[in-house]
Amino acid sequence: MRILVLGGDGYLGWPTAMAFAAGGHKVCAMDNYLRRTIARETRSDPLVQAPNLHDRSEIFESVTGKKIRVEIGDCTDVRVLENLVRDFCPEAVVHYAEQPSAPYSMIGFKEAQLTFQNNLGTTFNLIWAVINHAPNCHIIKLGTMGEYGTPNIDIEEGWIDINHNGRTHKFLYPRQAGSLYHTTKVLDTDLLWFYVRAYGLCVTDLMQGPVYGFSTAEADTDERLLPNIHYDDIFGTVMNRFLVQAVADIPLTIYGKGGQTRGYLNLRDTLQCVELAIKNPAGKGELRILNQFTEQFSVNSLAEHVQRVGNAMSLNVEINNIENPRNELEDHYYNASHTGLLDLGLKPHFLTDDVIATMLERVIKYKNAIDSRIVMPRNRWPGM
Amino acid sequence: MRILVLGGDGYLGWPTAMAFAAGGHKVCAMDNYLRRTIARETRSDPLVQAPNLHDRSEIFESVTGKKIRVEIGDCTDVRVLENLVRDFCPEAVVHYAEQPSAPYSMIGFKEAQLTFQNNLGTTFNLIWAVINHAPNCHIIKLGTMGEYGTPNIDIEEGWIDINHNGRTHKFLYPRQAGSLYHTTKVLDTDLLWFYVRAYGLCVTDLMQGPVYGFSTAEADTDERLLPNIHYDDIFGTVMNRFLVQAVADIPLTIYGKGGQTRGYLNLRDTLQCVELAIKNPAGKGELRILNQFTEQFSVNSLAEHVQRVGNAMSLNVEINNIENPRNELEDHYYNASHTGLLDLGLKPHFLTDDVIATMLERVIKYKNAIDSRIVMPRNRWPGM
Repeated sequence: MRILVLGGDGYLGWPTAMAFAAGGHKVCAMDNYLRRTIARETRSDPLVQAPNLHDRSEIFESVTGKKIRVEIGDCTDVRVLENLVRDFCPEAVVHYAEQPSAPYSMIGFKEAQLTFQNNLGTTFNLIWAVINHAPNCHIIKLGTMGEYGTPNIDIEEGWIDINHNGRTHKFLYPRQAGSLYHTTKVLDTDLLWFYVRAYGLCVTDLMQGPVYGFSTAEADTDERLLPNIHYDDIFGTVMNRFLVQAVADIPLTIYGKGGQTRGYLNLRDTLQCVELAIKNPAGKGELRILNQFTEQFSVNSLAEHVQRVGNAMSLNVEINNIENPRNELEDHYYNASHTGLLDLGLKPHFLTDDVIATMLERVIKYKNAIDSRIVMPRNRWPGM
Repeated sequence: MRILVLGGDGYLGWPTAMAFAAGGHKVCAMDNYLRRTIARETRSDPLVQAPNLHDRSEIFESVTGKKIRVEIGDCTDVRVLENLVRDFCPEAVVHYAEQPSAPYSMIGFKEAQLTFQNNLGTTFNLIWAVINHAPNCHIIKLGTMGEYGTPNIDIEEGWIDINHNGRTHKFLYPRQAGSLYHTTKVLDTDLLWFYVRAYGLCVTDLMQGPVYGFSTAEADTDERLLPNIHYDDIFGTVMNRFLVQAVADIPLTIYGKGGQTRGYLNLRDTLQCVELAIKNPAGKGELRILNQFTEQFSVNSLAEHVQRVGNAMSLNVEINNIENPRNELEDHYYNASHTGLLDLGLKPHFLTDDVIATMLERVIKYKNAIDSRIVMPRNRWPGM
């Protein structure tokens, strides 16, 4: 299959591009290096500086013999995206091309505007590039579980039947996100749903929880193929931050009470989920929504798990509850459905002691590169 | 009070600016003439060519002795909007500055992009201009009843309590609109709701139904102060189109079966509602949503009413069901709550025979100016 990966230089985009190329698909990875630019501007360098996307692709080819076509370009320019879609004729597009940091989106106007214009602009342009040049192409959009927020009722898989005054209607499950970044993904969902109805597009929206891990079949073959390991307050997901803190003798920073509960998944399962979505496409005129995570954890339980495994490895892992820089419920009901991907065949990699130990060992190799100044939260969000 | 009217040259914006100025408020009307530009490009001229906004303001002053400050500028440029908010220090902003035509937004990419970028961009910039320069300013946003679409359950006033698996949560009423224009207003609502929570903004979202009429206390004092009377397929609301068709001996064009039911209101009631919203502001950190219409009608019943009154005035009014250029349910459940504005004191002007007769008499004066080529739908929407 011809698979276009937008945001192909990212934490998820690059491993996705490698996995499909290794699987024999024709892959094009597009990126505008926005994350690298922001990382540089906000002093949020990854643990290991990855080669640029062209070099990554050449290294990948030298190791595996498989090609990944690389395009450096900005999806907010519709001509760039239309030209690529027309030329590459993708049968599936995996859309990761969004500014992915919630804390970044909450710094101030400039950062909010960039997030807003980039994330909505790329999605709008992708929709139109597909309408005009590849109307049967399956769009796989990475959404986020964060779109749902933390409602006091069970979170369903994208849709909900509402019974009201004796009548019933099926709606998009109401979304209420906690950051501008997450809100842009709510808006993406609204927009995709409209254009699915208007133009019969085929769309899968993967509502993904926080991802952890650095290991994939392809990344493990050569260190230079590693995904980006961010552990800072801007791009670092909570589990990856904890791993680096555990290794660097920095107490694991729990924001507030730590009762915040989310659905998590291993990077390997992200790849599995995206592959399952592509193998089992949405129908014409269908917005299929799948909740993409494998286990629910509170932040406290994550921290305690890392502590237990770390200390068994003779690390000295402490835990520190710090003032929460975010505005979020720290103790709340959370029960989210996630059967759709299991039904498609997902075989989860659960967060076992072994998995944590392997991740810690990987980070220990780079211990000297850890910059402890960028782990702690550097910006407070406005009061909600 | 200091009231800023964005989109102050529009069908609703201009009468709003006049009403507040007449009421002794300090009013600034801003517009970028986008509607005039689109009307020219799409050959959708109004029945009467209105003077430009500066001239309108001068005429208004010469007639009433009251001033309306005019600013020609584009709210999608945040600096322009920030400078104005900083300089004018509004206590209330009435936000009409959106591309208002659903059919226009469905023509193709160019029109969709303009609608999307303009409507989201103005709302995003207004939010930030208020955060940075007038954090206590009350934002009155014109939304649309069309955001709700035509669900099979009762439409509540913005919010709904969902009972699900034995638990309850209050959500924004789920929205599902029928055009890109209406979808941009759904996105506006999402965005405002996020920033209300994040920054404690005070926002009223007026979910307005289709407006009809040309008569207001101020507009009736001088013909040159008339609101824009559009009767074309792009900007003409259904009732105004029917009035012009009735006068021009063109059969009233019902799209499809005509069972489409909506909540309508008189232009005079739009002014009343906006005034009531300003007099009774939303609280800090509140997104107050009010459904702004006074009566529900099907398109068939509207057409029959115009026919009955028109024929009693010796017009020869016929009705013609034409193929529906839109994609919408033509026969559906519709029951929308609208008590909030009545509770604030709204005294509706209902659609009586007299009201229709007066509007027809007004149009008859301009009968020679009617261009019958622009009344019929000129674009088919894509299949839903």
